[in-house]
Formats: sequence, structure tokens, C-alpha cells
Amino acid sequence: MASGGRKRKLIVQKYGGTSVGDISRMQNVARRALAAQRAGNDVVLVVSAMSGETNRLLKLINDITPTASEREQDVVLATGEQVSVGLVAIAIQAAGGKATSVLGHQCRILTDSTHSKARIQQIDGTRLLDAVKQGHIAVVAGFQGVDEAGNITTLGRGGSDTTAVAIAAALEADACEIYTDVDGVYTTDPNVAPAARKLDRISYEEMLELASLGAKVLQIRSVEFAMKYRVPLWVKSSFTDDPGTLVCEEDASMEDLVVSGIALDRNEARISVRNVPDQPGIAAQIFGALDEKAIVVDLIVQNPPLEGKCNLTFTVGRADLVKATEVVKKLSKSLGAGEISTDQDIAKVSIVGVGMRNHSGVAARMFRTLSSEGVNILAISTSEIRVSCLIASKYAELAVRALHTEFGLDAKARKPARKGK
Amino acid sequence: MASGGRKRKLIVQKYGGTSVGDISRMQNVARRALAAQRAGNDVVLVVSAMSGETNRLLKLINDITPTASEREQDVVLATGEQVSVGLVAIAIQAAGGKATSVLGHQCRILTDSTHSKARIQQIDGTRLLDAVKQGHIAVVAGFQGVDEAGNITTLGRGGSDTTAVAIAAALEADACEIYTDVDGVYTTDPNVAPAARKLDRISYEEMLELASLGAKVLQIRSVEFAMKYRVPLWVKSSFTDDPGTLVCEEDASMEDLVVSGIALDRNEARISVRNVPDQPGIAAQIFGALDEKAIVVDLIVQNPPLEGKCNLTFTVGRADLVKATEVVKKLSKSLGAGEISTDQDIAKVSIVGVGMRNHSGVAARMFRTLSSEGVNILAISTSEIRVSCLIASKYAELAVRALHTEFGLDAKARKPARKGK
Repeated sequence: MASGGRKRKLIVQKYGGTSVGDISRMQNVARRALAAQRAGNDVVLVVSAMSGETNRLLKLINDITPTASEREQDVVLATGEQVSVGLVAIAIQAAGGKATSVLGHQCRILTDSTHSKARIQQIDGTRLLDAVKQGHIAVVAGFQGVDEAGNITTLGRGGSDTTAVAIAAALEADACEIYTDVDGVYTTDPNVAPAARKLDRISYEEMLELASLGAKVLQIRSVEFAMKYRVPLWVKSSFTDDPGTLVCEEDASMEDLVVSGIALDRNEARISVRNVPDQPGIAAQIFGALDEKAIVVDLIVQNPPLEGKCNLTFTVGRADLVKATEVVKKLSKSLGAGEISTDQDIAKVSIVGVGMRNHSGVAARMFRTLSSEGVNILAISTSEIRVSCLIASKYAELAVRALHTEFGLDAKARKPARKGK
Repeated sequence: MASGGRKRKLIVQKYGGTSVGDISRMQNVARRALAAQRAGNDVVLVVSAMSGETNRLLKLINDITPTASEREQDVVLATGEQVSVGLVAIAIQAAGGKATSVLGHQCRILTDSTHSKARIQQIDGTRLLDAVKQGHIAVVAGFQGVDEAGNITTLGRGGSDTTAVAIAAALEADACEIYTDVDGVYTTDPNVAPAARKLDRISYEEMLELASLGAKVLQIRSVEFAMKYRVPLWVKSSFTDDPGTLVCEEDASMEDLVVSGIALDRNEARISVRNVPDQPGIAAQIFGALDEKAIVVDLIVQNPPLEGKCNLTFTVGRADLVKATEVVKKLSKSLGAGEISTDQDIAKVSIVGVGMRNHSGVAARMFRTLSSEGVNILAISTSEIRVSCLIASKYAELAVRALHTEFGLDAKARKPARKGK
């Protein structure tokens, strides 16, 4: 195979649940993988469970009990990907190619033992490299791994992206292509802002901010992994030949754009505590207690103290609201704090761009835009390449569209997209 | 656990596809297993795929290609049992018990690499014994194993019986209980002969003859395994509390019965070759050629030669008829043999019993019975504890019923069944 003068490239392709949703789509995946192989690449596939399959299995589990042990849930759920790899390998063989399916325990995708959201620690690439050396397309089960003791683990929803990037990193692949049902990363959700535009390129850092802010294209851990190991990551559609979006290292040209994308997150809830005594260590007590319950706190705003008391506002994931409120209620009594209020009708809108580093006044421009639309800002948080505002959820779409226009992201407002690479 | 004076018994229970066919049936299995545990036993379960699941998976495979590689088929099919073990373990936990699912590669059910019909070579019982020592019910995936290279293998239809018996042998279990949708082994198929009677006990040898003759209660290899390792094997219903049938070593009382059961096999086809030259080595050539194509020949009848020619008749599995006829046609030309005829409208009826060893004239009694019913015998074969006759298929039910009565097996004709054990 690799005996020619030029070394063959190694490509990892990942296909999500909708891309392997039925037999004809699997045959489509087989054709794409074989085309990549014929074009002179060694190919490793990572596939998810057929769409709907994970939910079918979860329903079986929940019909027994809503509190099934996570170890056994992982055993059941991991079968979804196992079926897919076998069928995709068969589809490749039926199309005249050579293929070998590989399960998590077979290429030893070693994870910790945190069932249902395990983290990959190590991958033994030998089996995969042996397969591709013999002209096979290796078809690896996404989402699943195995711990030191040989228990089946799963990586959590969207975990197949992480599998793909981790394998690309372990094999030092030339590229990792994530195939999905959209044709790339957009400046914002096209369902919210019809003027949304596909990006040709985006930096890891920006993608990470967008992913963590609720853009559903890539699992956040897969982007972290890609950034850490500098894996060039393509987001492509399995239904078109569009080149997609390249997620890669930042370069000078990216800084021309002040803002690359706008994210909207509706999955947070706000908790406010009034009249918290303004003493050192009080905030640490509250957020320490939340951390103990594994509740992740996002935005935090503390008003300047007035008469020795201050108001504290913060957001948590909506699913954690009840648990978090209980924790805070218990504490507020012993701390002598006042009334607690909660609000689920909120949304977090964020602008993201590496260009912010070199452009001043970006945050102010965002606030001005929201203000001119009559949108009140409930809380603010920023990072080096991001500004997030908490607003009432009824203004969410309006805010996204206004910011999209303001920062020159609307499709019509810009010159034709640059070619990727 | 085993700290008391009396050693706890270890029981392996196997539940087939209908016994785990839906959630409520799995909960039933959980209750039965927990009852056995509460009664003072260590319990290992072996479960099959939910009924219908293997066919669903086979359909997916066949929708791609009818000639899928057996390695990949095994990867897909093995998921059926994986789903079952996870769900049954969850059902046991939900019922208040402790349970751990164990896959073929986790307790290293080592097989050869003959995908789709692999043979078990070795089982590492450590993981299972560790689990039961900690008060867990170990729930093992039937039907699947793993070869030296770590590939998933399957044991063929009915393979879960073999898994159960092999595990019982490896763990030196006190009993292996095969739960199914019938309540034991019958003297013959009750659908054919309404007077059929459930047996309390039957010897391994008899069960082996009955299993290989088409009785569908137990997979033949599981009986061989049980006989080899002297595992006491119970056939029970998962829907009743009937004690079932014990398959065990022959004892003196079994010999009182001349015939224990009557088997009917409709899956054979007859091939006859006329005017085969009566020369040494001709039969060897024909059957050698069939063997090369992995075609199993059952009955063989060769008429005495007349004028240097003889007629050769033999039976093969119906699925092999076309292939076998081709082989024979090719050979018969070069051998100078005559016309070839085939017949699928045949049935093989057999009487089985260890008592035959001590009773003479059993075969003659069988022939007389068939003759008195006007049934012509096309071919005969015998073993030490079996006589088989090939007859026209239209007489099959009549023959079974007549023999069932003749050998005193009819329910009404006999004293009440003895208690097992």
C-alpha cells in the first residue's frame, strides 16, 4: 500500500446517526469511504448508532426502571454502534471493498470508569493500522470504550465525535472528517436567523466557544481533543459534496473578522438571592455547595454591596434548577440571606470571534445593538474571544438576528465565502 | 456467602428468546432467578436474544446482501444477547437484587474462529465466581464467544444452550436448568401425537439421538457437552412451576422402557442413483465428493449388485439437495452410472431408547407396526439405541402415532409418571 514514493494519507471519517439511519444511507457511507480510499487515502470510519436506535434502547431500559444502573445501561446502549459497524462493514464488502469492524474493546479505547460519560484515556491503534495496511477500511464503533477492568463504557451523547478525533489523534491522521446532516458550521442557527452563512474555516477556540454555547454541530470534548492534538477537523454533510467547514488552528486572516459566529443557549435557568451578607467566603460557600452536588454554574453576577448586603445572580443548567434551588435555600437560611427567585424564561446570546482580541469596543457594540432593539441585559460574562448576555427568552431570536446583521455576518452583506484550506 | 456449614449450590439457568421476549417476561426471569438465590443457591443466568431480535438483525443484513461475511454477521447478531443481558441485569436490580451482566469476551468464552458456528474451547469462570461470591446474579450473554484474536464469534442457532452447559461444566455447577416455552422433553411431538407424554428423566444418549433427529428442545451440542462433563441438565418451562425433565446419566430403571421417545425428521431429501458399477471405491468417490462440499449424508442404502451394477440411495439435508444432486450428476457421468432421481416427500421416523440394548426384536416390531399400517419403508438405519425408517412423508404422523401406541408410550396406557430425581 504505502510502498509508493508518496506516503498515503490517513483520513478518519465519522458518520452520525442520520448518516447511517437506514440501509441505503449505509450504502452511501460505503460509497463515500471507498471513494476516499480510491483517491489514495487510508480510511478509518467511526460510526454512530442508526438514528432512533439509542432512543429505542433507552425506552426498553426505562420500561423497567427510570433508575437503571449506568454500567448496565452502557452495556445495552453500546449495541447500537455495534450493529452499525457490522452493517457498514458488510455494505463496504457488498460494494466490492474490504472492511473490518472494530469495537471499543477490540482497539482498546481505554476510558475511565465513569459510566455514561466516560473519558478516553488511551487508544491502541495497532489493530486499526494493521487493517488499513491490508487495504481494509476499518469501521470503528463510536461512543463506546472499555475500562481497565474490561467493563463496557459509553462517552455520552455525541461521543462518537470524540471517538473519531481521539482515533485521528492516536493514529496521527492527516484529517478527521465529521459527516452530519448539515453541511458545515454556520455563523448562527439558520432556523433563528435565515441570513446565517456557512463558515469555510473556524479556529478551534471559536468552535469550542460555539460548541459549549449550545451549537449542536460538534460535541465539545471532540473539539478540545482536536485542539489539544492539533487534528484538522472537517464538518461536512454526508448528503452533499460541499467541502464543509474546516476547524483548525487560528491564523492571521481569521482576525479580520471581529465576530465569527453567534450562539444561542436556551438551556439555562437563573437563580437570584437577595440580601446576601457581604462577607468574605460567602460566595465560596454557595458555589462550593453547588459544586459538591456536581451542579455547573455558568454566569455569575454580584451587585455592589449596599448596607452590607448584596444581590447574587447566577445561572445553572435548566435540568439542575430544582436541585440547585434546594441547595441554595438550605444555605441562605444559615447565611441569613433573603428571598430566592428563579427564572427559566431566559436565553443566553453570545458573540464569538478570535478577532475580538484585536478589536476594542466589541462588547459595547453588542450592548448598544441589544439596547437599540429594546432588549434588557440581565447579566453579562466575557472571555477573551466571547461576550455573552443573558436576556429574556422572548427576545432571543430578535437579538441573534440583530447581532448577526450588526457584525456583518449576513450572507448578502459579505463578499463570497473564501475557499477552505 | 459460602461461610455457612453447608456449601451453597451453584445453579446455571438458561432462558431462551421467548422467556425474555418482552420486559414483563424479563421481570419474570428476574423473579425466578432471585427466588433461586433466596432458596440458598448461587445463580448464573445465561440468556438469549429477545425473540424476534435475531431475525430483525438478519433482515437488516440481508437487505444489504445475502452473502455477508460471517465475521461481520456475528458482530451484528451478538448484539441481541448483549441487549438481553443488560436489560435482565437491570430487571434484577429493579427487583431489589444485585446483578452484573457478562459478555462473551468478558468471561472469555474462548471459541475457535469458525464464525456463525464456533465451538467453545475454554471458559474463564473467575469473573462469574467473583460476581456470585459478592451476592450478584451473573447474567451471561448466550450464543456468543470470542476467538484468540479477539474477534466476536457466535455458536449458531440454539447456541445459548451450549453456552449454559459449558459454563455449568466450567464452574462445576450442581445443575444446569434450560428454561424454554415447553415444560420438558416429550415422548414425541404432541402436535403429531396428542397422546405424547412428558418424560421425567431421559439419558444423555437418548436425548442426543432425539435432538439429532429433529426434536427441537435442546441444541445437540449442548447435550454432547452435558454428557461429556456429566452436567445434570433440566429442561423446564419458564411459564410454569412444573419440575420438567432431567437429562442425566443412564441408570438401571431406564432400561425397563424399551423405547423412550419417537422422533420425526422432515428435513431430509433422498437421492437415488441407478446402475452404479459395483467396483471397490465407487461409494468412497461419491461420498468423498459430497464430504468435500461439506454435505452431510445421513441414511445410505445400497442394494445387492445385479449384473455388476447396484442402486445407491442416500439422504441429505433438504437445503443441500440441489448442491448434492449437482455433485452426484457430475460424478455419475465419469463413473458410468445411470439415472439419478430425487425425492423431497420423505420423512424419517425413529424410535429411541437405551432399553433396546437389552431387548431383542425391537426393530422387527417397528417394521411390523409400520407394515400393518400400510407404510412402506424406503430405507433403514440403526444405532445401538435407535432404529430409523425412511418413509413417504404423507405417512409421517400415522407412523409416529402407531409406534407411540405400540411401544406403550401413550399417556393413558401407562402408570403415572415417576417423580424426577
